[in-house]
Amino acid sequence: MVDNFFRPKSVAIIGASANSKKLGNNILVNFKRNFKGKIYPVNINETIIEGLKTYGSVQDINDKVDLAVVVVPANVANRVVEDCARSGIKSIIIITAGYRESGSDGIILENRLKNIIKTDDVRVIGPNCIGVLDTYSGVDTIFSPYERMERPFKGKISVISQSGSFGTAFLDWCAENKIGINKFVSFGNRVDVDECNLIDSFSKDKNTDLIVVYLEGPKNGRELMKSLKATTKNKPVIVLKAGKSDKGAKAAASHTGTLAGSYNIFSSAMRQVGATEARTLDELFDFTKVLNKQRPAKGDRVAIVTNGGGYGVLSADACIHEGLHLAKFSHSNVEIIKKTMPRFAGVHNPLDLIGDATEERFDVALSALSKDKNVDIIVVFLWALGTTLDSGVVDIISRIAEKTKKPIICGGVGSRYTTDMLLRLESSGIPTFPTPWRAMKAAKVLSDYGKVKK
Amino acid sequence: MVDNFFRPKSVAIIGASANSKKLGNNILVNFKRNFKGKIYPVNINETIIEGLKTYGSVQDINDKVDLAVVVVPANVANRVVEDCARSGIKSIIIITAGYRESGSDGIILENRLKNIIKTDDVRVIGPNCIGVLDTYSGVDTIFSPYERMERPFKGKISVISQSGSFGTAFLDWCAENKIGINKFVSFGNRVDVDECNLIDSFSKDKNTDLIVVYLEGPKNGRELMKSLKATTKNKPVIVLKAGKSDKGAKAAASHTGTLAGSYNIFSSAMRQVGATEARTLDELFDFTKVLNKQRPAKGDRVAIVTNGGGYGVLSADACIHEGLHLAKFSHSNVEIIKKTMPRFAGVHNPLDLIGDATEERFDVALSALSKDKNVDIIVVFLWALGTTLDSGVVDIISRIAEKTKKPIICGGVGSRYTTDMLLRLESSGIPTFPTPWRAMKAAKVLSDYGKVKK
Repeated sequence: MVDNFFRPKSVAIIGASANSKKLGNNILVNFKRNFKGKIYPVNINETIIEGLKTYGSVQDINDKVDLAVVVVPANVANRVVEDCARSGIKSIIIITAGYRESGSDGIILENRLKNIIKTDDVRVIGPNCIGVLDTYSGVDTIFSPYERMERPFKGKISVISQSGSFGTAFLDWCAENKIGINKFVSFGNRVDVDECNLIDSFSKDKNTDLIVVYLEGPKNGRELMKSLKATTKNKPVIVLKAGKSDKGAKAAASHTGTLAGSYNIFSSAMRQVGATEARTLDELFDFTKVLNKQRPAKGDRVAIVTNGGGYGVLSADACIHEGLHLAKFSHSNVEIIKKTMPRFAGVHNPLDLIGDATEERFDVALSALSKDKNVDIIVVFLWALGTTLDSGVVDIISRIAEKTKKPIICGGVGSRYTTDMLLRLESSGIPTFPTPWRAMKAAKVLSDYGKVKK
Repeated sequence: MVDNFFRPKSVAIIGASANSKKLGNNILVNFKRNFKGKIYPVNINETIIEGLKTYGSVQDINDKVDLAVVVVPANVANRVVEDCARSGIKSIIIITAGYRESGSDGIILENRLKNIIKTDDVRVIGPNCIGVLDTYSGVDTIFSPYERMERPFKGKISVISQSGSFGTAFLDWCAENKIGINKFVSFGNRVDVDECNLIDSFSKDKNTDLIVVYLEGPKNGRELMKSLKATTKNKPVIVLKAGKSDKGAKAAASHTGTLAGSYNIFSSAMRQVGATEARTLDELFDFTKVLNKQRPAKGDRVAIVTNGGGYGVLSADACIHEGLHLAKFSHSNVEIIKKTMPRFAGVHNPLDLIGDATEERFDVALSALSKDKNVDIIVVFLWALGTTLDSGVVDIISRIAEKTKKPIICGGVGSRYTTDMLLRLESSGIPTFPTPWRAMKAAKVLSDYGKVKK
């Protein structure tokens, strides 16, 4: 059971420190912010740290400890883990680095660690990791201070990351973009708890709607496929595989001691089990955004609506490139839309409402297309730099998005005026993207995941 | 000569209006802001608009008019152009839409327009366009109000756009990102002045260092190649081709009446003449940023430096995917860097300075690599969420970038703390990117353009 890592009633921080430059201090301070359970700092030289009674060893704590966080140097970490196991602590997060990733001495150290936890009935996350964040319980082993890394608010995305730097940056990005998080685990060298344990746990978690995974290499490809296959029918899983190239794989080996394996095999396996593969960080961010906000699409027929002709052309290019289809609008809707357009303008897909489009023209067009049986997804690209389209178009799009079951995705390029409109759309639950191509890739993800759900 | 469009001493705005909802008002107001020459509003019903004496016709103006801006409806625009020609005006920008792009009636109108300007010795930009911005002379026919679209500051990039919505959004993006602009032309239906005239003009312009082109289809492919080939030896030209797919091409036809042609042929032609092709808007933005700030690279051997192991893996993947090479650091530099690293850490490329890297460690590594004869480009990906790396690393990178001739590109993912560091790097002339892949694509552009310059 990995659930104990997220909802402990008491935690021991071994290697807690009074020195604010040390990780053992940062972790303690961050725990104190939001964790509702009991906190026991452990440090052989101190009696009080950050106002909390401090213990010389976990064995001195006269209470049941549910979770231990280990932040001591590598040469004593294994002994500390033994102490924890002897004290009956069942869940241990080892932040400490200097294991397998650091060469031959580290490998010996890591093998010893494996033996310790094998004989006792404990679960370990790490070593060489950032650990766990649970926005609900306040478990927070991330040593980054709040001034540097914002914490995301409570949400329904759970994140699994082999890399600590990527993982923390992703959380920071989520906070900035107001994307809520449930649980986060960085597992580093993965001596015990692995991506499959976590996917299985998040799969069952009713409060997780989307799972995001950063992986340098799976521990066991077959097991990963099994876990993913069992999960993707119920909720989407986004997977970013790093170490695609030989050189990247080599880098992964010295980073988290991982054998990266063949990328092409991995990639087709992901398709097979219905996972959403992100090939780059940009895709990972964009796909997270769109799957967090929008339901899957019923098909792949896209309606492109814009008041900027160039955006229509670029969006059509992207639509075709991504393997989506330009919807053929039903005849009756073409007639309805025609009535709001200037005499000379045609009604095609991409639908160019022309530079002088008003809110009303968007209203008529989007209302019609949101009911069009030939349309599965609507992509709206706004040009907000003219004089006829006011920011009220945001309310129109939000209203229509609320009424329809079809996903609506928006985009726009520009500075403050445009960005404000996009932010308002985001707050209404409509994902927005800075360019047509990225909006269309997001549409593709909704269409593909729709097929998995069928 | 198209130079007259940019540096006129006097301008007539035909269709000037007192109604702030009309384009003819916006354009007049925007001219008044920065244009140092004389402004003559023309409107048959008014005597004063925006405090300026207004004329019933261009023929009533008792002064030499260098430039006419036409913003009257399509049914009278041709007559106005005739008036201009008769009055000896040699440069005319026709903003008016409703020509070739709007079907059969429009085609007739456009053919008549062609005849008018053929018989007289005038040059025309447009119709169906946004026109011209010159940040130095203050010519500004862009009807977008300043509240909606910021104007970029003076700079050395000149921009050519077939699409008005893209063109204005690009300028707005440049303003937001503090990227300076020299001249901008949106030529719409391109009845006379075309991309070749403009590229030739900007090619000779000593105050233009970089040319950015958005094209739905070239007027004449062979001429375009000639113009580009003559230009790219001296300055880089970025070209984005829209209408790549059949459907996109169809959309282009109804947008600016352009035949888009085969994309693959276009793409290889661009490579042949040394132009930098951007395949998406994201690439266009990123390539503009990097070519605006950095010199071309001497080769394709990249050094990746990071304190986030995951970023090293992702950057290596991107490096290989883009066809660049991971530099093999010279032996002496490996030794120098090794001394600043923890005992267990290896010194490879990607160079992982590890999560506990300090400013000093970055200083030693970057100083060494900036002098390494095996390194052509340095890509630094920062993880600013730890506790040991302070924002002083920005000054170190800036100092090293100033001393070396090798291009340095940076990146980082995160919220405020990270973004502030990246902004400070940008102000020191170092281009920054939000993800490893985009940083590496930018590196590829510098490497490719280095070959063109050779």
